[in-house]
Amino acid sequence: MDGKMKVAVMTGIGKMGFEERDIPKPAADEVLVKLEYVGICGSDMHYYETGAIGDYVVEPPFVLGHEPGGTVVEVGENVTHLKVGDRVALEPGKTCGKCEFCKEGKYNLCPDVIFFATPPVDGVFQEYVAHEAALCFKLPDNVSTLEGALIEPLAVGFHAAIQGDAHLGQKAVVMGAGCIGLVSMMALKARGVSEVYVVDLMDKRLEKAMELGATGVINGGKEDVVAKIRELTGGMGADLIIETAGSQPTTVQAIHAAKKGSTIVLVGYSKSGEMTLPMSLALDKELTFKTVFRYRHIYPLAIDAVAKGKVNLKGIVTDIFTLDQAQEAMDHSIHDKADIVKAVIKIAE
Amino acid sequence: MDGKMKVAVMTGIGKMGFEERDIPKPAADEVLVKLEYVGICGSDMHYYETGAIGDYVVEPPFVLGHEPGGTVVEVGENVTHLKVGDRVALEPGKTCGKCEFCKEGKYNLCPDVIFFATPPVDGVFQEYVAHEAALCFKLPDNVSTLEGALIEPLAVGFHAAIQGDAHLGQKAVVMGAGCIGLVSMMALKARGVSEVYVVDLMDKRLEKAMELGATGVINGGKEDVVAKIRELTGGMGADLIIETAGSQPTTVQAIHAAKKGSTIVLVGYSKSGEMTLPMSLALDKELTFKTVFRYRHIYPLAIDAVAKGKVNLKGIVTDIFTLDQAQEAMDHSIHDKADIVKAVIKIAE
Amino acid sequence: MDGKMKVAVMTGIGKMGFEERDIPKPAADEVLVKLEYVGICGSDMHYYETGAIGDYVVEPPFVLGHEPGGTVVEVGENVTHLKVGDRVALEPGKTCGKCEFCKEGKYNLCPDVIFFATPPVDGVFQEYVAHEAALCFKLPDNVSTLEGALIEPLAVGFHAAIQGDAHLGQKAVVMGAGCIGLVSMMALKARGVSEVYVVDLMDKRLEKAMELGATGVINGGKEDVVAKIRELTGGMGADLIIETAGSQPTTVQAIHAAKKGSTIVLVGYSKSGEMTLPMSLALDKELTFKTVFRYRHIYPLAIDAVAKGKVNLKGIVTDIFTLDQAQEAMDHSIHDKADIVKAVIKIAE
Amino acid sequence: MDGKMKVAVMTGIGKMGFEERDIPKPAADEVLVKLEYVGICGSDMHYYETGAIGDYVVEPPFVLGHEPGGTVVEVGENVTHLKVGDRVALEPGKTCGKCEFCKEGKYNLCPDVIFFATPPVDGVFQEYVAHEAALCFKLPDNVSTLEGALIEPLAVGFHAAIQGDAHLGQKAVVMGAGCIGLVSMMALKARGVSEVYVVDLMDKRLEKAMELGATGVINGGKEDVVAKIRELTGGMGADLIIETAGSQPTTVQAIHAAKKGSTIVLVGYSKSGEMTLPMSLALDKELTFKTVFRYRHIYPLAIDAVAKGKVNLKGIVTDIFTLDQAQEAMDHSIHDKADIVKAVIKIAE
Repeated sequence: MDGKMKVAVMTGIGKMGFEERDIPKPAADEVLVKLEYVGICGSDMHYYETGAIGDYVVEPPFVLGHEPGGTVVEVGENVTHLKVGDRVALEPGKTCGKCEFCKEGKYNLCPDVIFFATPPVDGVFQEYVAHEAALCFKLPDNVSTLEGALIEPLAVGFHAAIQGDAHLGQKAVVMGAGCIGLVSMMALKARGVSEVYVVDLMDKRLEKAMELGATGVINGGKEDVVAKIRELTGGMGADLIIETAGSQPTTVQAIHAAKKGSTIVLVGYSKSGEMTLPMSLALDKELTFKTVFRYRHIYPLAIDAVAKGKVNLKGIVTDIFTLDQAQEAMDHSIHDKADIVKAVIKIAE
Repeated sequence: MDGKMKVAVMTGIGKMGFEERDIPKPAADEVLVKLEYVGICGSDMHYYETGAIGDYVVEPPFVLGHEPGGTVVEVGENVTHLKVGDRVALEPGKTCGKCEFCKEGKYNLCPDVIFFATPPVDGVFQEYVAHEAALCFKLPDNVSTLEGALIEPLAVGFHAAIQGDAHLGQKAVVMGAGCIGLVSMMALKARGVSEVYVVDLMDKRLEKAMELGATGVINGGKEDVVAKIRELTGGMGADLIIETAGSQPTTVQAIHAAKKGSTIVLVGYSKSGEMTLPMSLALDKELTFKTVFRYRHIYPLAIDAVAKGKVNLKGIVTDIFTLDQAQEAMDHSIHDKADIVKAVIKIAE
Repeated sequence: MDGKMKVAVMTGIGKMGFEERDIPKPAADEVLVKLEYVGICGSDMHYYETGAIGDYVVEPPFVLGHEPGGTVVEVGENVTHLKVGDRVALEPGKTCGKCEFCKEGKYNLCPDVIFFATPPVDGVFQEYVAHEAALCFKLPDNVSTLEGALIEPLAVGFHAAIQGDAHLGQKAVVMGAGCIGLVSMMALKARGVSEVYVVDLMDKRLEKAMELGATGVINGGKEDVVAKIRELTGGMGADLIIETAGSQPTTVQAIHAAKKGSTIVLVGYSKSGEMTLPMSLALDKELTFKTVFRYRHIYPLAIDAVAKGKVNLKGIVTDIFTLDQAQEAMDHSIHDKADIVKAVIKIAE
Repeated sequence: MDGKMKVAVMTGIGKMGFEERDIPKPAADEVLVKLEYVGICGSDMHYYETGAIGDYVVEPPFVLGHEPGGTVVEVGENVTHLKVGDRVALEPGKTCGKCEFCKEGKYNLCPDVIFFATPPVDGVFQEYVAHEAALCFKLPDNVSTLEGALIEPLAVGFHAAIQGDAHLGQKAVVMGAGCIGLVSMMALKARGVSEVYVVDLMDKRLEKAMELGATGVINGGKEDVVAKIRELTGGMGADLIIETAGSQPTTVQAIHAAKKGSTIVLVGYSKSGEMTLPMSLALDKELTFKTVFRYRHIYPLAIDAVAKGKVNLKGIVTDIFTLDQAQEAMDHSIHDKADIVKAVIKIAE
């Protein structure tokens, strides 16, 4: 497909602008996707606010966005499993396939991954993208491209739940009720976990958690989180805790609230990169900490879980902006955290 | 057996004395053991120096010592698997058998455990002890009661190695070359780990590590530990790290030196109970932290490993004191750390 | 509670009678339970029809029945977690607590287990039973004693699902739609398995499977089971198969219908004890076979799954008889397999 | 390298001949290897004797041999990790890298694998081969190309030991003392297994097993295998059994001799493809059967185990033939099983 497309670009810290670029051509193993929805993730906000995450530094103009859903409009010559008109969710990371991690199936640890919106690789706040066909997963009829865009954060939740071996019979806790906290809660429930309690400081987010299926919620600003979890678990502590808030206080609470012999999955990044933790208490309890990085092999099962109604993925979206509103979308997402749980940019119908 | 026995008691912080007590009578499920060797453990030293570990506070007179080996001199009426004259290693913790943890086989997490030398329960720096027969493990002819006493720390090393799933093909690192570091190194080797590097600040301990089979050693005071481990592992980092030093710097080094996707087993307790750790780096690497508490189901395999010559357990002992030298044994163990790797009290031949 | 109770006894092959016996006295760690419902299991039928299962030979008079639910009417002096009036499900096997298997948490393998209705131990087709309190699990208000009786077969289903590591994202197959096949199907669904197909020869049972939540059913007498499963799984084969029919043809089908690298859980006993299986095909596919024996640690989670509405346990019952109809109950269960999926004896309200 | 090479070809059932073919050119990702040793495997013998294994039918002329070791003589333009003169072991199967199995790291299950000497793909009884560089593993100085050739069967042994989770503290049994039985025994020992007993009918093979490190051996033609294993394991049965004989009697013995709750790894293919097994006994014992197909991710650790002296790989070779003796090598391997444990063809120094 020849022609030009609109691209929303980060032109500096806190500044969005627009560029016109050529619509890309799909290579032999790629498809060209007309994007319909792209979610705004915490990492997008962090790059936008500060210009960097760790060693990854934005060089403007830079394209944010790595949670895309859209429709195939052109297929490369080697592609057989997709055709024009297929609606797809795009897994944003292309890996080398040759390193030790790729060969052993842990491709999320590939050191040569090329990942949307991770400098210097551009993201997808734009009208079209050419992407490896093997990373484009066809959506069933009853899953929308809005949901397709949200498969990416849901994959984070499922990876955390799987790494924590979440299962029926457990009483679990999710620290944080932002987007990742909510998808983690839903992932736990879809894996059969019997009771899932969600902890946050903002009532609006806790209401959202209840609306989406949490067994109960705890406002950490009003209640003693550790005491409440002990009470809810017959004094034993939680069987599994997923920490998504990335804060030291919630991580310390997790250690206090965990049952002996249990697992804490760490998903949230702390601002400083460091945390001071009561490790001797962790030893006394023989806890396991599983830290997780992105996800692997999750898209098919996540899409299937949405299609089967096990996860109410649409329900996490509180705000939808147009591509022209990219600056507003970013600014609101950052400054109205009490109101916006999850914003999405709608690029086309 | 009627009569009196000599007991070395801690009479106050830094003070040892002696008492004469009745030789205990074994209950129906117990045996009476004439003790021959009892190891001195870091926790004994900590109680002796400070009077407490966490919530466990010494009320003098208190008997230290929980690493005993000896010979059965009397058997309770229900005991069938032991007879007078059998030499045994004594597992020091008696558990309830009824709680959720005991039922699921994780008896080391039993909240009602009665453990030698953990206040208010007395230890075994004394001539005799009556102990549950099921916790007394018969030693083969080629394993001495000195080695029997050391099965307790070796069990810690094996539990750490097992929880870390140590196996052939791995390159592993042990942080710390004290008693627990050395037994962990030997446990890793016995499980088939191909290369085991040991890190410490004291050359004497590192020499001991080499003598006992380490593949190589790193003096953390003289070399860049992280750079050295990267070099030894082809730039990939270690497949498995067992942290026994209980210090923040070595734990931070472990996180930096670990391979992506690998496991760090935390065994050592820090003095303050807390550690400040680079958790974002851990997340980027998708590390697993397994903390461990004592051990479970290890005595039979540890004794067998010694009997088969897979572990040179005697080799860790640097100093042997008599029961009459209890004060000297404690004082030297605490103040001559550069010289004494592991001290044992010899109670009888 | 003094007095006499009615007991239905097997007086010979195919013959039931009644006896009056003393109501038992609960020991210190026991409770006395007034039984309300007892399920009829395949093993009860097998003893009744043939007088033996393997080495277990019935010596009449013998009491059948090991799936009991009832109400506590008296508590032993050491019992603290139950009180008179509590409604309970009774786990039927009392284990030694001392053997290697018990200590490691695999108590279902205890060689000294005492299990209801396993010769020479009597079962519970009777009005009262005194049973170890730790094996009596309190039912929540919304779980009936009829459901309490059925926790026993449900536990078999959950143990199979857990041993097979059933989880979200899988397409699973259950061979056989008898009681154990149906509870296995429901256990898989409760663990989050996305699609569960059930295979049987009897349409009534397959209708029951659909009614209780199967994704689809296959009548092995009318359809090519292997071809159908391949079709339903995109040609890949099933991710997990639970074989409950205990027949060679269904086990052979399972091997043919399993995906490469997948697991087959074997639950059903074959009549002859032997099966001729295409093992070279299994090797080519690198299949894992998990055989299972009863269950362990399942009652609390099974009761919770029923209470939470994850399993429609009442739904498997097709026929309810009174204790006076014991002979009729046994005879019908054996001879009307096409009509009776699961029969229960109602002993009291 | 231009020129011609000698190739030993199977020209019909039981007939070997020779052809002259062009020395292949390495593609960009390949290396050209001058072969020095190629082992003769059971599958080579089976094709030679019968012309087929299952659906794989030989169309003469066909080249046998898939256990090669040699020296790199030319490297493709993209190859960086190997250079001319490097001695290598060649992993014989090239997989697609794109299917679900490859992506999840289970590449041995890839349906599109191209494997040496599996019709219609030729093997390597020839002077040179061009092979994917990623499948050529450099040998350390202290590992010969003869040992390099034998890494292939050793990989089978290690895969079996790993799938069975072989570890320190276990008492294991290997059924069969042919090449795969012997390497399995050595793999178990290298993984730390404490005692490994080997069962066979031929004394020469059992002597070889003892020579290579077996703890003990059992001649199944002279002793009651099951009774003997029970005796050697204190009546409990074996913790782990690896069945390499591929016979029904040894597989039945394995089920009888296995400890409750233990694992049997099935490696050997039966002649008929079927086995009649006492499955009800397996259920009573809650056994796990892991069947294995070839291996994955094993070459580096297997080479390292040889280099570290953990496995005496040379020791399994009983006969060395030249390429010119290819017919004699095949005929003797098949007809003198009591004398030849493992034959190798030496192609060059």
